[in-house]
Amino acid sequence: MIASRLALPPQPHITTYRVVYADTDKMGRVYYARYLVYFERGRTELLRSAGFPYRMLEEHGLFLPVRRCEICYLGYAVYDDELHIATWVRRVRHATVIIANAICRPPEPRPLVWGEVELASIDAQGRPQALPAKVVEALGKYLF
Amino acid sequence: MIASRLALPPQPHITTYRVVYADTDKMGRVYYARYLVYFERGRTELLRSAGFPYRMLEEHGLFLPVRRCEICYLGYAVYDDELHIATWVRRVRHATVIIANAICRPPEPRPLVWGEVELASIDAQGRPQALPAKVVEALGKYLF
Amino acid sequence: MIASRLALPPQPHITTYRVVYADTDKMGRVYYARYLVYFERGRTELLRSAGFPYRMLEEHGLFLPVRRCEICYLGYAVYDDELHIATWVRRVRHATVIIANAICRPPEPRPLVWGEVELASIDAQGRPQALPAKVVEALGKYLF
Amino acid sequence: MIASRLALPPQPHITTYRVVYADTDKMGRVYYARYLVYFERGRTELLRSAGFPYRMLEEHGLFLPVRRCEICYLGYAVYDDELHIATWVRRVRHATVIIANAICRPPEPRPLVWGEVELASIDAQGRPQALPAKVVEALGKYLF
Repeated sequence: MIASRLALPPQPHITTYRVVYADTDKMGRVYYARYLVYFERGRTELLRSAGFPYRMLEEHGLFLPVRRCEICYLGYAVYDDELHIATWVRRVRHATVIIANAICRPPEPRPLVWGEVELASIDAQGRPQALPAKVVEALGKYLF
Repeated sequence: MIASRLALPPQPHITTYRVVYADTDKMGRVYYARYLVYFERGRTELLRSAGFPYRMLEEHGLFLPVRRCEICYLGYAVYDDELHIATWVRRVRHATVIIANAICRPPEPRPLVWGEVELASIDAQGRPQALPAKVVEALGKYLF
Repeated sequence: MIASRLALPPQPHITTYRVVYADTDKMGRVYYARYLVYFERGRTELLRSAGFPYRMLEEHGLFLPVRRCEICYLGYAVYDDELHIATWVRRVRHATVIIANAICRPPEPRPLVWGEVELASIDAQGRPQALPAKVVEALGKYLF
Repeated sequence: MIASRLALPPQPHITTYRVVYADTDKMGRVYYARYLVYFERGRTELLRSAGFPYRMLEEHGLFLPVRRCEICYLGYAVYDDELHIATWVRRVRHATVIIANAICRPPEPRPLVWGEVELASIDAQGRPQALPAKVVEALGKYLF
């Protein structure tokens, strides 16, 4: 089991995204808050790829608002960059999911931006709600 | 009646707004879609000043989504400009309100951007809903 | 000539776009200003597909700021919709390009939003600048 | 010296901000990335109030891009809230400034969102650049 995990290092989920003019600011860089929208796009596509589109979770009364978020800006993206939004699951516990994101501009090896986002799992009334076992299991393949 | 209108020429409602970095793009100007957010701010403050905050209208089941919008970009705002968002009511009819906006940078006399926004008045189910008479009356003082 | 145009009816350029949470507002719809960002994405991809990425035009000192814009909201997009951004060239003249956009949610035949955007062609000092003949020619295939 | 600091506990700089529809998402809350724009507004107004508008710093060739940022979402703002953006200076060192922000909805005592933003001080070529002594001194009164 451990051997297989070592043999198959966890791959992130990758979503591509093209930077638009609307994302840039007068410094000619992507505005710092925009990366959080890229992170959202990354985790949404990870969930879809795991078989549980976030739209479907909401329709079943499960919401995942952000509770905490940390971002390191190592470089910056510019207009028209074709970015890779890499997304991993760091931890799934009861009513909390921690997601890691790296924003990369291939073929550069070093990410431009790194982020970690903690999501709370709640119901429509805002009460903590455990993630269904099958969602936890599906997210497992992106654990890192 | 006409005399009193001539004696009291219609003044727009004015809201001030300071341009943030987030509003700018790599050309160093305010991004063209951002002015529509300024227009929203302008009509919200006009409604509040007329005694009918939009939040309150929504709580009473009246929604005002945008149905049409036209914008002329005569100039452009830049970072840190302190803008005047001028707002007028052009027309109120049954279930339609037409709002006019000018974005100005005092003391420059010429607006940077001019816009006209048509709002539909609907209920929570999306059906056309006549504006209450008292709202129509209150908006009258901003007619232009 | 006319025959060949009839034989080959102009097809729009199509870009797909997935609506993110960031695009929505409390009414559960895509916020009205966001469609202008979709329009931008559409015309950028049309230019790229015509062989003249906008980034390249800017590097050659040609800028295309928006001078006028009209939008009709016939319906609305919601979270997670996979939209088609259809883009046509309506007219290319000297230093002006007019672009038409339709935002569609396949397989629905009727567009949700329709827009027309007039771009001015200027140099870095803001002076009108004729579009290069080869750009005009390349845009011709999207004329409608 | 210490006595005077104890006698005059550091007050944050306060900027007020009214939440617009554009800031909200389909959950009816302010979208999580929007608070970073509020933080920007807060530190811009703190700099202005300290006598060094950021626009002026840029004109003198000093830029303050964000290098790191951490946000805790304890509650959430909704449409039309009139928020207080509280801003403190946590640390000023050579070519780094750390800013703390709290987003509050008076009269509620508990902040809705808390953030810490680390800014790098660079020149137009992206090289670290020490903050001028007079800027450091002016920021001192907001130290916390």
